[in-house]
Amino acid sequence: MRPHRPTAHAPVAANGLLDRRLFLRSGAGAALAIGGMALPDVAASSEALPVEPWMKVPGSPFVGYGQPSRFEEKVLRVAANPPNSPGTGAARTPLHRLSGTITPNGLHFERSHSGIPDIEPDAHRLLIHGLVKRPLVFTLETLSRYPMESRIAFIECGGNGLQLYQKDPAPLNAQALHGLVSCAEWTGVRLSTLLDDAGVEPAAKWILAEGGDAAGMSRSVPLAKAMDDALVALYQNGERIRPSNGYPLRLLLPGYEGNMQVKWLRRIKATEGPMMTKDETSKYTMLLPDGRSLQFVFPMEAKSVITQPSPSLTMQGPGLYQISGLAWSGYGKIAKVEVSADGGKTWASAALQQPVLSMALTRFRMGWRWNGGPTVLQSRATDETGCVQPTRSELIAKRGAKAVYHFNGITSWGVGESGEVKHVYT
Amino acid sequence: MRPHRPTAHAPVAANGLLDRRLFLRSGAGAALAIGGMALPDVAASSEALPVEPWMKVPGSPFVGYGQPSRFEEKVLRVAANPPNSPGTGAARTPLHRLSGTITPNGLHFERSHSGIPDIEPDAHRLLIHGLVKRPLVFTLETLSRYPMESRIAFIECGGNGLQLYQKDPAPLNAQALHGLVSCAEWTGVRLSTLLDDAGVEPAAKWILAEGGDAAGMSRSVPLAKAMDDALVALYQNGERIRPSNGYPLRLLLPGYEGNMQVKWLRRIKATEGPMMTKDETSKYTMLLPDGRSLQFVFPMEAKSVITQPSPSLTMQGPGLYQISGLAWSGYGKIAKVEVSADGGKTWASAALQQPVLSMALTRFRMGWRWNGGPTVLQSRATDETGCVQPTRSELIAKRGAKAVYHFNGITSWGVGESGEVKHVYT
Repeated sequence: MRPHRPTAHAPVAANGLLDRRLFLRSGAGAALAIGGMALPDVAASSEALPVEPWMKVPGSPFVGYGQPSRFEEKVLRVAANPPNSPGTGAARTPLHRLSGTITPNGLHFERSHSGIPDIEPDAHRLLIHGLVKRPLVFTLETLSRYPMESRIAFIECGGNGLQLYQKDPAPLNAQALHGLVSCAEWTGVRLSTLLDDAGVEPAAKWILAEGGDAAGMSRSVPLAKAMDDALVALYQNGERIRPSNGYPLRLLLPGYEGNMQVKWLRRIKATEGPMMTKDETSKYTMLLPDGRSLQFVFPMEAKSVITQPSPSLTMQGPGLYQISGLAWSGYGKIAKVEVSADGGKTWASAALQQPVLSMALTRFRMGWRWNGGPTVLQSRATDETGCVQPTRSELIAKRGAKAVYHFNGITSWGVGESGEVKHVYT
Repeated sequence: MRPHRPTAHAPVAANGLLDRRLFLRSGAGAALAIGGMALPDVAASSEALPVEPWMKVPGSPFVGYGQPSRFEEKVLRVAANPPNSPGTGAARTPLHRLSGTITPNGLHFERSHSGIPDIEPDAHRLLIHGLVKRPLVFTLETLSRYPMESRIAFIECGGNGLQLYQKDPAPLNAQALHGLVSCAEWTGVRLSTLLDDAGVEPAAKWILAEGGDAAGMSRSVPLAKAMDDALVALYQNGERIRPSNGYPLRLLLPGYEGNMQVKWLRRIKATEGPMMTKDETSKYTMLLPDGRSLQFVFPMEAKSVITQPSPSLTMQGPGLYQISGLAWSGYGKIAKVEVSADGGKTWASAALQQPVLSMALTRFRMGWRWNGGPTVLQSRATDETGCVQPTRSELIAKRGAKAVYHFNGITSWGVGESGEVKHVYT
């Protein structure tokens, strides 16, 4: 059909990394011969396929709201929470079991401080007050009449990846280490539209955002961000936001740490300065080596992680594989993701799934011919501002080992001869 | 904060249609005063909000796979099927209850010919045979090692909107009339990659795609499309494809009628010509006025529908509203959507949610100041090839009244003084 172009799977870095043209339309036409089982001619007909039991009976009927296959019942969020506090803690997205960039709503990570409130939407109100000319209260019906916009955005918990600040590599997988990041299409009313209707006073430089959960989760946000791209989001991937993600309303602050994107949003107060809430003083600050804390570090830094192969997915012997993962930056678009198959000595650029959107998860992919030997896989993201994801050592040299939040260092997956993949430090 | 710019909500067409700058960042700063309830100063504090019952008790704990709020239990697909054939027919997406462009997996429309098979993924095989040098059989594990790509694509059933060919307007809503269209991020292996590995013979000009359901749903597809942008899709919005959408594999043919995008894909046969299967001879053909049928009309034509306001969503009195809807074309990107609030006499361009992707649903939005009088709302899509969505009369003049498939005429929603919205013809 088309000429064989062997260069499309020629190595581009050490230890078997292949050219990203494998993933581009222009690279098609190269026979990969990965291993569809070849059939003897005599069997090369539909008789080569058995008539399976499910082809002999009518299938199941329609349901109003569909669910995943029963064979996927292990693809679940995993929760970690303190004893006797079933609703306090976090539940992580199974990144190693997913592909693409959208997180299905049932698997979007969640972080709650006093469980998931059962909010009656008709009773829910959003108050805008403080340094405004006209304090306003909104119902959902009123909000639905304002101009809306949609954007695909990642949300990452400020504490995602905190185990990598530890001295020894935690024997965990991508879900347990980095599963506090997800991505969805959010739709709602721009917060600036509502603030314009309330008439923000010139003295106001910040807002306080408060949630309607029993914890009354509250964070201060610079007014400039609130007036720029903040959304009062009502929809997540097309449907109303799920209870665990803020039903019926959440604040969306593209690129900022998840904790600020207040769920179950009930109150916005325009203020002169930050309100010094619990979650911006005793938590979600950067503890520096000298014991002081850095406050108000909002955007999540450029980061990436390889999701396949990764721990708990065992490789099935030498041969051609796809290395795939996610990259993101709270400062804008991902410009480049490099992959190393020799523990960081040599690197090659991965293919980025288009369109690359600002402050959204970006899927990267690269071909890899594994020779069966032990090695270490890494990925390194660069965003459009030029920020390069640091090595773990570089990050710790800068932040110190007492840090908890905003871990964006490089993650290393060790591949053993048996095909087992483990979290390692290099 | 920012200067009041009244032009941003000046009328741009008859009967209250407002400038699309309302939906663009550059149009911000216009006070809309839609109706957040203004508060007397004395109440303009957090005390203006009651402490709701759900703020007084810890919320519910985490679950592995989340579900929508119990208050959204009416947001469901609605199934239509022949008597005693629970798995034969279609279940429609509740377009009027959704926003954004992604359809959540639980609400993606489905069309089945013999129910939803319960396929065991480890037993499932994909056979590629016929006019190929090396017939191949793939397991899911083998497929997962090939290069993958993702794309956001709509799928529309060829029969979507068929009620609008009827003489009288069916008293139905957007879900019942047009709910056989949905949009998701699909991820899988390009079919051309697999065909290249099998080595397609020069004599092959078509493929046959066959499903693993009890109906053995089969369609012929031109080889050119198979080698262009067809995917063997494994993931839908990040997770494995749902059973109702083809678990574990479906064919994705961006822009083509849904019936060809064979679910539960088990067999691809390279052939010289089309195989004249039941669903391309007795069905899914265009019955012309002279009694002959046109075969092989594959891409779905440029189309749009207003989803809000629409029947079963009653308007709450005169004032400012958002008109919102979906547009799509199987020939490429949507270039323009116009909206009319006077039954098609005057038109104005709606804002298109960016990024506009080829062969994906595009959300359009427009401000509308409803004066409370009766009127008719319409939308008209134009795609990048210059195709303009025809009026219903124009379409029927061309296709005749016996047609069943590919209805892409303009839909009209009549708005009554009571705020009730009905499907009407103009």
